[in-house]
Amino acid sequence: MAAIRALVASRLAVTPAFAPRPGLRALLLGGPAQSPRAALHASAPRPAARVAVVLSGCGVYDGTELHEASSILVHLSRAGAEVQIFAPDIPQMHVIDHTKGQPSEGETRYGPLLVVLERSARIARGNITDLAKLSAANHDAAVFPGGFGAAKNLSTFAVDGGDCRVNKDVERVLKEFHQAGKPIGLCCIAPVLAAKVLRSVEVTVGHEQEEGGRWPHAGTAQVIKALGAKHCVTGVTEAHVDQKNKVVTTPAFMCDTAFHHIHDGVGAMVSKVLELASK
Amino acid sequence: MAAIRALVASRLAVTPAFAPRPGLRALLLGGPAQSPRAALHASAPRPAARVAVVLSGCGVYDGTELHEASSILVHLSRAGAEVQIFAPDIPQMHVIDHTKGQPSEGETRYGPLLVVLERSARIARGNITDLAKLSAANHDAAVFPGGFGAAKNLSTFAVDGGDCRVNKDVERVLKEFHQAGKPIGLCCIAPVLAAKVLRSVEVTVGHEQEEGGRWPHAGTAQVIKALGAKHCVTGVTEAHVDQKNKVVTTPAFMCDTAFHHIHDGVGAMVSKVLELASK
Repeated sequence: MAAIRALVASRLAVTPAFAPRPGLRALLLGGPAQSPRAALHASAPRPAARVAVVLSGCGVYDGTELHEASSILVHLSRAGAEVQIFAPDIPQMHVIDHTKGQPSEGETRYGPLLVVLERSARIARGNITDLAKLSAANHDAAVFPGGFGAAKNLSTFAVDGGDCRVNKDVERVLKEFHQAGKPIGLCCIAPVLAAKVLRSVEVTVGHEQEEGGRWPHAGTAQVIKALGAKHCVTGVTEAHVDQKNKVVTTPAFMCDTAFHHIHDGVGAMVSKVLELASK
Repeated sequence: MAAIRALVASRLAVTPAFAPRPGLRALLLGGPAQSPRAALHASAPRPAARVAVVLSGCGVYDGTELHEASSILVHLSRAGAEVQIFAPDIPQMHVIDHTKGQPSEGETRYGPLLVVLERSARIARGNITDLAKLSAANHDAAVFPGGFGAAKNLSTFAVDGGDCRVNKDVERVLKEFHQAGKPIGLCCIAPVLAAKVLRSVEVTVGHEQEEGGRWPHAGTAQVIKALGAKHCVTGVTEAHVDQKNKVVTTPAFMCDTAFHHIHDGVGAMVSKVLELASK
């Protein structure tokens, strides 16, 4: 048993196994057995789309909605995209105890480690880059999952509504991709970032009426209109495409529905983003 | 703008919107627009499978591997299963800073809020139950995603290998489902829990050789054998079924590969678990 224990210790024990492994990048890029190029176009190779995914923490109430992020990564991976994950190296607005749905004062007080980058790294499996380093020059598209992190850490929308401020790197990145004519995908509450920064774009956050609780945040559509953007009513398994601005949006968890509907809507968004990126 | 701000405040602001909404349960159960029964068998209704999903935190290095959990929930949702999510109300073994892959001493020190239940609630979108309340009598199957939380919080496998202790509720739950002839699904490192508690079962953690880093934790198979279980080599997009014991396992992130391979392997596991639950 001693030998087995040593073997397990070397693989699973507390410290060494947690250092990011060289294979992690391969993992995020599609794994060694199947190159992104091969996966996308076996007969007529073309470069894989290089997609930046921008996170805002880890957990629906104070960070990235992790199921949306996970679906984005599954769909990008299946399409053979080359993915790099980013998040801002800033403190979280606060921490919500997800069992109570209330701010967790104790944890919030010990702020130094509660940075958006570290929380986001949980979704990225350790392979994450400071958003300050994201340049549209190095990527073909950018994708923003939702969750309240987009409205609390990437902007102040949760507190200030249409008067919100947007994180300076988020604003810069959105403008860079837009000006370069490169597609931007956003879901859930994240489309408010495009409406605030780019103004006259078409986006969706789903339906405009609550419909008995199925669309609990339906009022967000009015704020989007007030910002000068056009809101386009869209179902949860669909994505709306602003062809002119190359902005693709899907409601995701703005709709109170089943996980596979979210997965499929995110899939529609990813598919349209990659289609625009290949043009 | 004042009216819009009030509207946004009422929907998105810091406190009220974070109280778990009545709709959240509907969301986890499949949403109001499509009942689990209707989704599964439109022409010949039968009760939806009631599946317990057991989490161990949120983040691959100290909790549940959240992509595995998300894939489990997407596949269960698509199959129309009735899902309830559980986690033990215990402190985490420690916190790993996922940007560094090292224990985060500062955060670990402020332990009271770092409970497995709260971290897991991030994956469950707030709708989570103490594992102590999980009884096999109320469910048709149980599913355990992986991540180091299974080897650190649900057991001491990461430190003690085959000599590990298993959390008493995890042990009780595994024995209850097994004795009731109800299927148990496990992925990634979680199959060691079944090997330790049930002993003479067939499980997989993938391949038994590292193969150049593609299977970085391949040595785990030897520990499983030493525990008296049978290890069955299985590809990452497949699931192994122990028909006699109704234990279904898939390697998931024991393999260093792309996200969609994990999603598909988890889908194979979920599909087999539901097939066994319906017999």
